[in-house]
Amino acid sequence: MEKQQLIECHQRIKPFIHNTPILTSRLINERIGAQVFFKCENFQKMGAFKMRGATNAIMQLSDAQRQNGVVTHSSGNFAQALSLAAQSLGVKAFIVMPNNAPQVKKNAVKGYGGIITECEPNLTARENATKEIEQREGATFIHPSNDDEVILGQGTACKELLEQYPDLDVVCTPVGGGGLIAGTALAVNYFGKECKTIGGEPFEVDDAYRSLQSGTIETNAATNTIADGLRTQLGDRNFPIIQKYVAEIIRVTEEEIVDAMRLIWEHLKIICEPSSAVALAALIRNKETFQRKKVGVIISGGNVDLGNLPF
Amino acid sequence: MEKQQLIECHQRIKPFIHNTPILTSRLINERIGAQVFFKCENFQKMGAFKMRGATNAIMQLSDAQRQNGVVTHSSGNFAQALSLAAQSLGVKAFIVMPNNAPQVKKNAVKGYGGIITECEPNLTARENATKEIEQREGATFIHPSNDDEVILGQGTACKELLEQYPDLDVVCTPVGGGGLIAGTALAVNYFGKECKTIGGEPFEVDDAYRSLQSGTIETNAATNTIADGLRTQLGDRNFPIIQKYVAEIIRVTEEEIVDAMRLIWEHLKIICEPSSAVALAALIRNKETFQRKKVGVIISGGNVDLGNLPF
Repeated sequence: MEKQQLIECHQRIKPFIHNTPILTSRLINERIGAQVFFKCENFQKMGAFKMRGATNAIMQLSDAQRQNGVVTHSSGNFAQALSLAAQSLGVKAFIVMPNNAPQVKKNAVKGYGGIITECEPNLTARENATKEIEQREGATFIHPSNDDEVILGQGTACKELLEQYPDLDVVCTPVGGGGLIAGTALAVNYFGKECKTIGGEPFEVDDAYRSLQSGTIETNAATNTIADGLRTQLGDRNFPIIQKYVAEIIRVTEEEIVDAMRLIWEHLKIICEPSSAVALAALIRNKETFQRKKVGVIISGGNVDLGNLPF
Repeated sequence: MEKQQLIECHQRIKPFIHNTPILTSRLINERIGAQVFFKCENFQKMGAFKMRGATNAIMQLSDAQRQNGVVTHSSGNFAQALSLAAQSLGVKAFIVMPNNAPQVKKNAVKGYGGIITECEPNLTARENATKEIEQREGATFIHPSNDDEVILGQGTACKELLEQYPDLDVVCTPVGGGGLIAGTALAVNYFGKECKTIGGEPFEVDDAYRSLQSGTIETNAATNTIADGLRTQLGDRNFPIIQKYVAEIIRVTEEEIVDAMRLIWEHLKIICEPSSAVALAALIRNKETFQRKKVGVIISGGNVDLGNLPF
């Protein structure tokens, strides 16, 4: 994907997204020995960067496609993002969710106008339900992370960050399905000066780390991480970008994630998801590497169950 | 206190404080039927508006006074505010704290360079310890809320809010010791158009509500509220300002405070103290009064014990 595509994508989605604030904390800077700039996508519409990619993907459809709506399977932020983006653009959004998804997530999707189809909580049921909607409604399937237009959309958060702080040395994001880090890596490549992209990933779901080692897409046998947004897999669209442009993936423990989340809550005074804290946890774990550097961090989202906090 | 004094106060403290961001939430607006603008003093230095008043009070001292330092008694945000403000200005800060104050609060004060004197947790011990420091060190006592310079400083948050949104119909703050609402009322009076100041106060510590009714300063027999920043008393400096300029004080239940706090956390994605939520709780309780109005709310602070949340 070319620089011009990222520029046009950003131009296209601007009216539908927030240019989110960038926060800093003196105490976190002292803790790491670096200057850290947090791009706060927890303040994005519906509470996560996913709004960017979802909006771009829908806007790139033809009129005929838009008329029949879009469909995705997700029980997380992308379900809400596609619903709200579709609502803003006057398009129907069909969301396939496992029937054991929390009621609060179903309500959020409904609140944004998403049309939910429940299915058994397994891969076959999910894919069958999705295909059935594609056929019955003529809806276009949009993948939460393995889609070029989604990847471009997610890259606009880092583009905004670099517009405000052009001389960052590093940008760090959490790694889940790979959409955010791939988009970020493109933005760093096209708009950074001498900047590199790194990722933070839980040891418990380190498919991206292992994929970079082996050169092929690896899978996770289990997904026992508190970072619920990262229990997903790399795909064939984003993996080549990650291979080409991501300098390093740093793995972190569950305890390091919770500690970093607490630091963000206490010192930035913002609500972020455990997944967001993975990027800061990675910086802290390898802080020797970042001394006196200027580091951007994408705080990916803020949709968290306050009744079920790790502290 | 005159308009010019508030203007000069703001000019004076500007280099030492943040002009904090103002956030909005579509869902909260829909819930109340008004447009609500949250002035986020949880993002202020040391995490609360108290930084403003403490900075102004120290800056108004003579050189001789500054040389001998300042003293206050507080186990809350003002202790941290006076310590950090004094540190920024090269002045010593003596803080009298009850010996049963949480270690985390003592550490915060020490972190900002405050010199702690512990005393028994009662009024007499606190006053004796304070007087002893005034005599021994020649330090100047600065009251957390009942001090003209502190009141002026606290008013600058609302001044900034009105600079950005000049046509607010109402500004609402929590009411504790009275410094914030008195300063806010002055700012509304001098810089608002047709704007009024209202306060939110817990039923459990409704001394300000009762004082306005009776015309004399009332006290609280007990202080059983989750809004720990509001367990304090009005004073003779701020009460006359409140009498003259505050339109109404709305009392709220403990449950309403927790519900409003949860709304702020979930929809604004920010960490605020229970005390801050009292202002939003007041708006929700009397929401019929605020239909289609433009309402400012001062989010007073974000220093909260994450290990002891009400949800």
